[in-house]
Amino acid sequence: MNNLLKRELNNRLKSVQQAIIDNEAEACIISSAINIYYLCDFIFDGYLYITPDSEPVLFVRRPQDINHSNRFYVRKPEQIPEYLREKGREVPKKIMLENDYVTYSMAERIKNAFKVDKLFNISGIMREIRSIKSPYEISIMKESAAAHTEVYKRIPTIFEQGMTDLDFQFELEYEMRKAGSMGIFRTFGPNMDTFMGTVLAGDNAQTPSPFDFALGGGGTSPTLPLGANGTPLRSGTTFMVDMAGNYRPVMDDMTRTFAIDYAPQKAKDAHQVSLEILRTIENDAKAGVPTAELYNKAEKIVKENKLEPYFMGTKQQARFIGHGVGLEINEPPVLAPRSRDILKTGMAIAIEPKFALPGIGPVGAENTYIIHDNHIENITLCDESLIVLK
Amino acid sequence: MNNLLKRELNNRLKSVQQAIIDNEAEACIISSAINIYYLCDFIFDGYLYITPDSEPVLFVRRPQDINHSNRFYVRKPEQIPEYLREKGREVPKKIMLENDYVTYSMAERIKNAFKVDKLFNISGIMREIRSIKSPYEISIMKESAAAHTEVYKRIPTIFEQGMTDLDFQFELEYEMRKAGSMGIFRTFGPNMDTFMGTVLAGDNAQTPSPFDFALGGGGTSPTLPLGANGTPLRSGTTFMVDMAGNYRPVMDDMTRTFAIDYAPQKAKDAHQVSLEILRTIENDAKAGVPTAELYNKAEKIVKENKLEPYFMGTKQQARFIGHGVGLEINEPPVLAPRSRDILKTGMAIAIEPKFALPGIGPVGAENTYIIHDNHIENITLCDESLIVLK
Repeated sequence: MNNLLKRELNNRLKSVQQAIIDNEAEACIISSAINIYYLCDFIFDGYLYITPDSEPVLFVRRPQDINHSNRFYVRKPEQIPEYLREKGREVPKKIMLENDYVTYSMAERIKNAFKVDKLFNISGIMREIRSIKSPYEISIMKESAAAHTEVYKRIPTIFEQGMTDLDFQFELEYEMRKAGSMGIFRTFGPNMDTFMGTVLAGDNAQTPSPFDFALGGGGTSPTLPLGANGTPLRSGTTFMVDMAGNYRPVMDDMTRTFAIDYAPQKAKDAHQVSLEILRTIENDAKAGVPTAELYNKAEKIVKENKLEPYFMGTKQQARFIGHGVGLEINEPPVLAPRSRDILKTGMAIAIEPKFALPGIGPVGAENTYIIHDNHIENITLCDESLIVLK
Repeated sequence: MNNLLKRELNNRLKSVQQAIIDNEAEACIISSAINIYYLCDFIFDGYLYITPDSEPVLFVRRPQDINHSNRFYVRKPEQIPEYLREKGREVPKKIMLENDYVTYSMAERIKNAFKVDKLFNISGIMREIRSIKSPYEISIMKESAAAHTEVYKRIPTIFEQGMTDLDFQFELEYEMRKAGSMGIFRTFGPNMDTFMGTVLAGDNAQTPSPFDFALGGGGTSPTLPLGANGTPLRSGTTFMVDMAGNYRPVMDDMTRTFAIDYAPQKAKDAHQVSLEILRTIENDAKAGVPTAELYNKAEKIVKENKLEPYFMGTKQQARFIGHGVGLEINEPPVLAPRSRDILKTGMAIAIEPKFALPGIGPVGAENTYIIHDNHIENITLCDESLIVLK
């Protein structure tokens, strides 16, 4: 492990230890793959046990080849307090757990094992800590965005007349994998099922989905009602590419829109409004700005252009235009009307003002930005215009 | 909805209602996408409220276009008891929840909303109910297996000399998608991260993974340490294809093995032992047979052939050789030494005796079987031999 990464991991650990102290707790137990990765730089199945003033202990179920001085193999969480007693360490009474991730069954087992009545929640705190990206993480994210951009640039050569949205998406997925997409698209929470992102064409962009993305789409399987559904890519319609920027563990998020043969005036106009929203937010956003303020400015522009019925969907309209992005695609902050989030230096956010135009299709663009003290920086540097494919 | 499907859904609902009665509970709340799909034939984000003696109520967050007589839109679970009070219905005191799925935070909210101290677990019961497949589900699973078989048959034409495992896998993923793979690979539990399945070549088959599959592999990303890792497909080595049989919602599971240029004698022999295990289990398995008995017979054959060091891995060895399969890839029963599961008519199980041979690679085969009263039926009808590719 190089020194940069060591310092990085040490800083992350310190943030968690500080959170334990701030919450007057004694220990925290991390078990989600993503937070274990964040704190260890590798994933194991088990429990990462952290206290404010000692080295973390890795209680590992799998894999059975971890080379770490504080690694202890376990089969079950009940062995954690056993281990602590054996080592003459205190068994904590105030414990933090990823309550928004750990199942009720597992939490009850941990409560019983530690003989505590309540578990304090570190999920939101972990998400908040992770929302501030270090220069190291930002450099990884930029690598992901660069790979993502290279793939998107090839879209005009991937597209062929006569394709459906699915035909196109399969070709794009294949290009993405060859360009280093890790495949799995990491999301947080129970209503974020997806595969490698979405391609939405024509009126399928209006189809509501149970899953909480900016736009929906019907999908092809009843067990994944999201995204492309076999819509033909027809002359005078548009399609939107919002595929996973998962070329590196720290991801980017980028959407671009294409028109087939020609762009109808309505599509051009609405796409221009989307870009105007991006320019306005780019102008205003910096550390200290409330995200609700940015949402409200976007909504004002939408209203001035009388595009409310199409903004972020038609039959079902998403009530956000942006979100943090990192190891998971839906991180804090959220750019929503009632959000109390404030932009902070080091945050990475995706902003995605989109419209679904009946009879035409979706338009809009999405970029990923890094928040700085006095400005925001677009890291998805790829032509944003409504590109006409012939 | 056709009558067959209506009857099907009605039977599933009755099983859940019976489970509520058997557990002396008053109601159950289902919120996982897969169990909602199982009971409704579509997915929504929200809560399916079931009591033994009335129509289920769909408390829906998204999508906002559900056409159902008992659908009620909500933003949060606290609205369920409010709704019941408004309708003059009893607010239950003994509630079953998917405790192995629902987060601790959400369970606590439900406990508070219903003013109960404890939630009873329906997760295992749902998995047990789902483990018995109806003729309708088996017909869907056979469709999936048929599509899967057609893709696997094309492997000799997909393979090219000079490929790495990843080069090969990307081509195969592309073929799978074009053949109707829904992409997403549904698993149960927190240590089952995967993409579209695995291709394991050479010594990468021995690499332990944090995730609980039969074999591991190092993967390409630290956030998905599983599967292909860029191993060249070299002459005299083997590779194993265990890709998702997810061409339909009810899935199949199938593994086949290939040798490049020639199969070393050790590979031929161990592969033959794998097939011998399958033949033995095929001969013995039927309704009423304990799965541990089948595991033990497999282990006996492995020992007779002195292959224990390579069975189900080397550095890390999986302690199971089979599992149920359906809407998720890891369903009950499990074929493991300490399992107390008994085969039942209608169960669908994948059996996957595998070996990882140092310096050569993985060998073995996996089929999906339906359990009948007096025999088991292989539905993955595809050449099982160790196929040599040139």
